[in-house]
Amino acid sequence: VPFKQAENLSHDNLVRRAASLVTDSSSTFLSQVTLALIDAITEYAKAVHTLIALQRQYLDSLGKFSPAQEDAIWQVIISQRAEVNSKQEEMNRFESTWVTSVRLCEMAAEAAYISGAENASVTVRTNILLAQSQVEEAQKLSLDAEKKLAETKVMEVEKMTQYAASQGSSNDEEEIPEAYLRED
Amino acid sequence: VPFKQAENLSHDNLVRRAASLVTDSSSTFLSQVTLALIDAITEYAKAVHTLIALQRQYLDSLGKFSPAQEDAIWQVIISQRAEVNSKQEEMNRFESTWVTSVRLCEMAAEAAYISGAENASVTVRTNILLAQSQVEEAQKLSLDAEKKLAETKVMEVEKMTQYAASQGSSNDEEEIPEAYLRED
Repeated sequence: VPFKQAENLSHDNLVRRAASLVTDSSSTFLSQVTLALIDAITEYAKAVHTLIALQRQYLDSLGKFSPAQEDAIWQVIISQRAEVNSKQEEMNRFESTWVTSVRLCEMAAEAAYISGAENASVTVRTNILLAQSQVEEAQKLSLDAEKKLAETKVMEVEKMTQYAASQGSSNDEEEIPEAYLRED
Repeated sequence: VPFKQAENLSHDNLVRRAASLVTDSSSTFLSQVTLALIDAITEYAKAVHTLIALQRQYLDSLGKFSPAQEDAIWQVIISQRAEVNSKQEEMNRFESTWVTSVRLCEMAAEAAYISGAENASVTVRTNILLAQSQVEEAQKLSLDAEKKLAETKVMEVEKMTQYAASQGSSNDEEEIPEAYLRED
């Protein structure tokens, strides 16, 4: 039927279809970035937990190691701190891409809506909400890790003070490893 | 090579590819909307030119028609005015979609850039510039048509005044078609 064909090829129709392709690809982009961000958050949280474990282990064994052993432990802690920083940078990088991908999807939803592709617009808005709740869930992991790290810092100060006091008569303050004070 | 494969599957790589899909589909959307807008502008300009031609024809033959003939011509002019209005609405509708599609492409370019897909970002920005220059070119047609329509209005006022003056002694002002005064 020629009339039907003409309708299928109308500008409105072509624009609407093109808008649907945009919402599809924007949703794909959003989910790739969301997966990358969630992985980056998880890896950062894991690195923080490892750092916490190392630091607590060190504090529990204060004064039980030889200087050479202490030095070896300190190398591990310092390199884990570098790992935490690098994971945090990676996380921040994906976080900024993620914010952009959400804005892009909002723009795609608007474009689909104005083009008459209401369903595509609703779908992409649903995907935004889903991505936001997934990222919020993951961010609880990193917030929890950061909270535990802060608690460990408080513990550190207490233990180091106790240790310094117990060593006060026989040794001088030089016993507290310099790296520890410098890096924190 | 396992290392090569791991690199291909990295989050950065997947995000970059997904960003390229977004710039592709956004560019397609932009060009569909640009084509639709250019067609709508062209059709609007054509409708305005037809209206101008009808009005000039009427003014050139003032007083040469029977009341029945004048009425018939007036029906044509009135329906052409409706056509112009409808083409203008269509044009305005695509214009607003087009503005959205340009903003979408700018957003896609930003997303591609932040994802490390610099080439895709540059390509979509080039497409934006191209679309803008195509639309500006088409808008010259409609601006030209609107200018000519305004000139015809000035001509109308002059001709109608002359006609009214020439008819002044023998006929009264009722001779100027009511529809003409009402619709303009």
